[in-house]
Amino acid sequence: MQSGQSSAGPVGRGAKVRAAVHAATLAELVDKGYAALTVENVAQRAGVHKTTVYRRWKDRESLLVDALAEHMAMDIPVPDTGAIETDLGALARSLVQAFTGATGQAVLAAMFTGAAHLPEIAAARRHVFEDRLVRAEPVVTRAVERGELPADTDPAELLKTLAAPIYLRLLVTADPVDETTADLAVHVTLAAARAGALRAASRLPEQTTS
Amino acid sequence: MQSGQSSAGPVGRGAKVRAAVHAATLAELVDKGYAALTVENVAQRAGVHKTTVYRRWKDRESLLVDALAEHMAMDIPVPDTGAIETDLGALARSLVQAFTGATGQAVLAAMFTGAAHLPEIAAARRHVFEDRLVRAEPVVTRAVERGELPADTDPAELLKTLAAPIYLRLLVTADPVDETTADLAVHVTLAAARAGALRAASRLPEQTTS
Repeated sequence: MQSGQSSAGPVGRGAKVRAAVHAATLAELVDKGYAALTVENVAQRAGVHKTTVYRRWKDRESLLVDALAEHMAMDIPVPDTGAIETDLGALARSLVQAFTGATGQAVLAAMFTGAAHLPEIAAARRHVFEDRLVRAEPVVTRAVERGELPADTDPAELLKTLAAPIYLRLLVTADPVDETTADLAVHVTLAAARAGALRAASRLPEQTTS
Repeated sequence: MQSGQSSAGPVGRGAKVRAAVHAATLAELVDKGYAALTVENVAQRAGVHKTTVYRRWKDRESLLVDALAEHMAMDIPVPDTGAIETDLGALARSLVQAFTGATGQAVLAAMFTGAAHLPEIAAARRHVFEDRLVRAEPVVTRAVERGELPADTDPAELLKTLAAPIYLRLLVTADPVDETTADLAVHVTLAAARAGALRAASRLPEQTTS
């Protein structure tokens, strides 16, 4: 009963309230950051009563976790351009776009800094990453089928290699992150993959299989 | 006057107090985490009076920033084994070691989660990373001189490529981080570098220089 098809009945209204409260939560994050996030301000911005919010979410933390999870689960187009280079380029650019701009920066700050101490946020972060990874794996398997990459290329390792330099800049170095970052990530990932450095078996190059 | 050679005079005592308080701060972080860190507990563990701590650090935040910065600045041996693969392996393993084990995990959690909202911590994080990068650059320039890597390999890009998959696992995916992670990072980085994907000029592959 959480998502409604109709916009008329109580289910439709429930879905509308959820969407409005989620949007208001993100807007409050963008404007004021996690530390200043209150259920009161979110309710006011969403145009609903505070008790309406508390009926669905027990506190600001669960509201935030829910809004972030919903936001992160959205719009993950998995590209299928027919070539690995353009597919990876699209994936890398969508990751860059997800965490740049006002909303992206606010979401990043909440997930990795402001609310990072909440176990639910840490879990949501891992879940979102894992989910995106699994969804994007066909990009790699299709490239292997087309003969663009070595047959035993590990999709998860390849996609982590693609994401890693972008997250390094977002979370550690605070270097600017833009399309150039995405292009460099594609370049490095493809070079490593083509050289066979991202083969499933190459994870343990020094060890014998036993 | 911050670091003393003698262990007798007031300078030596000052240095001893600093070292004891720093060590106590890290130990408190390991045992209780950032949220529970208090100047009182640190002083007690260090065997000094609370006012002794407050004379040097204005609050627990500046104490933490100082202790973390000192801890992170320590023991950064820059390897010079005569071969790029073993040099990068040593660098990657020292990064893995820095953030695993009880102290490493506590430092990582404080720097990237618990105290990540403090501007001084964000600044210290960037500074430490930048400092390590600059110190390690000779590893790459020596490899270029030995003809192991393309002449125009960008040392900073190469070292970021080495660090990126390790930080991704530490900060995003929460995958286990161990020597295998380090070896894979070396493998990927060398493949990309040898294929010319980490050349200074290749940062902007699609753009014309103007």
